[in-house]
Formats: sequence, C-alpha cells, structure tokens
Amino acid sequence: MKLAIDAMGGDYAPEAVVTGAILAASEYPDLTLLLTGNESQIRQYLGHSVPDNIEIIHTSEVIEAVDEPVRAVRRKKDSSMVVAANLVKEGRADGILSAGNTGALMTASLLIIGRLEGIERPALATLWPTFDGRGVLVLDAGANMDATPEHLLQYAYMGHVYSQDVLLVEKPRIGLLNVGTEPGKGNQLTKTAFPMLAEGDFRFIGNVEARDVMNGVCDVLVCDGFVGNAMLKLAEGIGLGLFGALKDVLLQNWMSKAASLVLKPGLLKFKKTFDYKEYGGAPLLGVKGVVMKAHGSSNARAIQMAIHQARQFMLRDVLSQFVKVAGYKEHKMCNE
Amino acid sequence: MKLAIDAMGGDYAPEAVVTGAILAASEYPDLTLLLTGNESQIRQYLGHSVPDNIEIIHTSEVIEAVDEPVRAVRRKKDSSMVVAANLVKEGRADGILSAGNTGALMTASLLIIGRLEGIERPALATLWPTFDGRGVLVLDAGANMDATPEHLLQYAYMGHVYSQDVLLVEKPRIGLLNVGTEPGKGNQLTKTAFPMLAEGDFRFIGNVEARDVMNGVCDVLVCDGFVGNAMLKLAEGIGLGLFGALKDVLLQNWMSKAASLVLKPGLLKFKKTFDYKEYGGAPLLGVKGVVMKAHGSSNARAIQMAIHQARQFMLRDVLSQFVKVAGYKEHKMCNE
Repeated sequence: MKLAIDAMGGDYAPEAVVTGAILAASEYPDLTLLLTGNESQIRQYLGHSVPDNIEIIHTSEVIEAVDEPVRAVRRKKDSSMVVAANLVKEGRADGILSAGNTGALMTASLLIIGRLEGIERPALATLWPTFDGRGVLVLDAGANMDATPEHLLQYAYMGHVYSQDVLLVEKPRIGLLNVGTEPGKGNQLTKTAFPMLAEGDFRFIGNVEARDVMNGVCDVLVCDGFVGNAMLKLAEGIGLGLFGALKDVLLQNWMSKAASLVLKPGLLKFKKTFDYKEYGGAPLLGVKGVVMKAHGSSNARAIQMAIHQARQFMLRDVLSQFVKVAGYKEHKMCNE
Repeated sequence: MKLAIDAMGGDYAPEAVVTGAILAASEYPDLTLLLTGNESQIRQYLGHSVPDNIEIIHTSEVIEAVDEPVRAVRRKKDSSMVVAANLVKEGRADGILSAGNTGALMTASLLIIGRLEGIERPALATLWPTFDGRGVLVLDAGANMDATPEHLLQYAYMGHVYSQDVLLVEKPRIGLLNVGTEPGKGNQLTKTAFPMLAEGDFRFIGNVEARDVMNGVCDVLVCDGFVGNAMLKLAEGIGLGLFGALKDVLLQNWMSKAASLVLKPGLLKFKKTFDYKEYGGAPLLGVKGVVMKAHGSSNARAIQMAIHQARQFMLRDVLSQFVKVAGYKEHKMCNE
C-alpha cells in the first residue's frame, strides 16, 4: 500500500508532516509513504537514516492556504499537492494525505483523481468529539453545497461503511440532522430524505437535533454540506472562544494561577477530549482513491493519526464497498 | 401600550412569569400587562397589592411543551397562549409574550395574529452572546424552513430595523452566513442572495463564516431557518456540555473544590457572558403585532428583560417601519 503525502501542506509543514511520517513509517512497515515537496527541506527533518518505506518526490511549488482552490490546482502543476494527486490518478499511490488548503485538496481530488462510478457527490466526513468520548462522523462537512435527498442517502451509505470498517464502530447508528426529532420535521430536503433513509440498508435512528449531536446519540450524522460546514465552523469558534475566555479567568491573578495549577490535570484531560489531534483526519468519501484531509494546524501526532486512518481505509478496501453501495442503489432504482 | 403575557408558559410558570411581570410593571408605568392563565395560581404569586397596570384574564387550558403546535393552537381555544394571541388580534393588546412552546407561539402568531402585509415570511430573531459582550441578532432561527433569496433580503431589512431601534445599535452591520467570506461562495441560496443584500439600504458587510459569529464581526446575521435553528441548538448543546464537563473537573476532589472557590468570581462572570437571561427574548418579526418568545427556562429576571424588549419594540413603532420596508421592496420590484 502506498500513500502520497503532501509534505508542504499545513501550518507546521514540512516539519510536522515529515516527523509524523517518520513515526507512522516505523509503526506500519506495510505502508510506503511518498513525500511530495521540496527535497532539501524534507531531508532537513528526515535525518540521516531515512526509513526504507519513505520516498521523496521533489516538487517546486506549494499551494498556499490563501490560494483560490480551482485556480491553484489548475496553475500550480508542480505543487506538492497536485503532484501527490497525480500519483493517485496514475495508480502509483493508493491515496493522498494533506494538511494544506482544504478547498484545493477537494478540487484536486475531483478534477485529478475523479469520482467513483455511481457516487453522485463526494462528501467530506469529519469526526467530531462527543462528551462520551466516542466521537461522531459528520458528513457532508462542506464538499458539496447543494445536496439532493439522493445525495444524503449516498452520504448515509458511505458514512455507514466508513464508520464500520475504518472507525470500527459496530452497527453504527445513522442520524439525519434536523430541527426536531419527529419524522415530519424539517425543510424540503430532510422531509424528502427521511423516508429514503428509513428504507436504507443500515441502522437509521431517525432525526437528530443539533443540540444532541455532541452527546453521542448517533455515530454518523448526515446533513448537507452548507449546514455541515456552518456547524463545524461554529463549534470551532465556540471552542476557541470558550477556552480563551477560560484561560483569562485562570490567569487573572496569582491566586487564580495557583488554583489553576491544582486543576491542571483535570483541565488538560477536559481539553484533550475536544482535541482534533486525537481524532485523525477527515476523509473525502466517494473519489477513486483514499483522500485524507488533516487539520491545518496538525502537529506530528495528528499527522501520524491521519496516516493511521488512511491505512485502515486502504486495508479494509472501503472504496470497492462504496462502488457496491452505488451499484446497489442504481439497481434498486432500476427496479422501481 | 398593552402587552398580553402568557402566564402559564415556561418551565417555571406561573411563578417566574408573574414575578417578572411585577418587576416590569413597577419599572414601566406606561405599560399595561394582561396576564392570561389560571387566575387563582396567578394571584398566589401576585401578592395582596396588585399593581394598577397588571390585569388578569382567566383561562382554563395550557399548551404544554410536548404538545404538537398546530393541533394545540387549533384545539386549546381557552389556553393562556391562544387567548393572549386573540387579545392582539382583537386590538386589545399590542403584543404577546410567552416562554411556552416555541412552535405553538409561532403557529398562534401566524394563524391568529397574521403576517404583516408585504412580509412574505416572518422570522424568529435570537440574540446570541458574543465574546465581546455586544451580542449578535441571528435571524431566521427557525420560523421558516425553506427560505428564498427574497426572504433573506426581508430578514436583513427587519433585522436592521430591530437592531437599530430596539437594541439601539448604531448603523448595525448586516452579515450573510456563508461557508467562506468571498462573494462567490456558498449554496444557490446565498449566492443569489448576496448581490441582493449588497444593494440593500443598510450596512451590508458581506459573507460571515460561522466561526466568526461569536467574535462579534456583525450585529445582524442573516440565514435560512434550518441552518439558523441547527446552529442555535448546536451552540446550546456545546454550552451545556462544556459547562457540565468543566463542573466535573472543578468538583473532582477536595483540592479541586478548594481551587474552584478561588476561581468562583471569575467563573461566574465567564458564565454570565453566555447567559441567555441577560439577553431578553427572541422576537418573531413580520407579524401584525409584537411577538416575543422568552426562553423556556426563563426566571423572573429573564421575563423582565423580555418585557423590556417588547416595550422598546412598541415604543419605537417598529412594525410600521417593517411595512415601509416591505412597501419599499415591492416598489423597487415594480420598477425593475
């Protein structure tokens, strides 16, 4: 199995990416890691004894966080991300991992690697922390802005397979994000999708309200990419703001500083529950290859976890199951 | 000015509602409060000397939180909420306030009081806490599930007027909730609405990402009711969960309990920033009367603040400004 890694993507690239790759390379001898990026910069962090299962593919350009995705993918042909995507397209790698520009990674995946046959719209699936520590897979988190009920059904199938085979959740509970728990609730999209999901070949638990998502009431939450993206970013904003405000309280004066020392172990555990670094990457489901987006501010540990998830994705042959799901759906529609 | 108050609605009704009404009655002698509900229960909390500007209208039924809204409004004709709505319809009150079933209040407002002429869809406007303490008015928070670009434009106008005249924000900054800040971003709805908002007769600051909403980047945030409701409930869920988890850390053992005593003043202030009770009620904008929804778990202070806001709403004659806005819009469309 081969994974192409965009060594130049992310806030702490290439150091965090290369260090994460070294950790994963020794953990998984069955996985070859192809690092794309500036060779001399990569070598700087690789050290003298490069592991056998790490290869470097030199590239001269970098897609920056501020670059406009479509233009960047079209113009920066020799960027670490585009070269990595081409490795997947040409069959020289089974997947790509990047902590770089999310929009560019989705664009590169769609334009270069392409959709799986039968999958109408790929979906970005993000694993959210929950208060019970299990986590919930939310899709679509923003790959596709205008979803149809059929898209939501495919998200549910892909989420089911990914949750079961990659995240190893037994009989994952699939929920539909909605404004109430009763079946008749929602907008046109969710009202139409509800009966379709109810007939799906997975464990559909019905509508889920946003206030319950982080209480772990379902393992997979299906929603359109606009609302998924808005919720993801809102949660990020609230998290950052609350931790910042809490920090101000703790560091206010010498007494509060002393008190916070006592509370430190508990607070660190509290913070760790909501730490994206423990939750690995976000896969783009429905393209002809494994695509894993690591968080922009990933450190080496986060990269290592994302590589772990990408490997699991490959090992369990999730893509051919997606094709079956799409085929099954087409078959079902033909009979209708 | 007369405000009909559903004395039986809310988790702590009638006590919290009646106590809040007493506080507001002495603060605002220009406002008459018509309390609808069980007279003997209301009198129990009113005490011996009933203020001159409080009247009781006895009703025999109550719409419960679990009741299905449309059915409850149609069948429970003598409920405190329906009777209060009828007072507005008959011109015997200028507005209604309730901490009861949100869906039922919206239904009663639409079916009994009715839409303002020219306003296509009323919107529920909720004031969110922001980290800078200013607050942001988010609409629609769930009155209307499928919005058109024209609806979003009307929300913007109504939000502008309400923010300026009731919340007393000078030249309120209007933002459009979107998945990116660039003008071309979003789903079909926001892409079409953007240029319409840009031409609006208010201070449009463009797209706003959900992660920035609580940083106070705008005073009014426009979005469709599905995503507004999802965000509102997500924020509620995260807030409750985080404060619960934090409490566990503080009460873990005697050392952490001692430390939390030291931190208590700071933590209380921190919590107060996110306390809905300080932010008053959520108005339903676009109906032929003042409709104010107080939070279900409102205490007397929250009811008092919501009455304050309802009074401001009446004083500034916001409704006739909405009519002008709707007229202005129709006029503009005729000229196109």
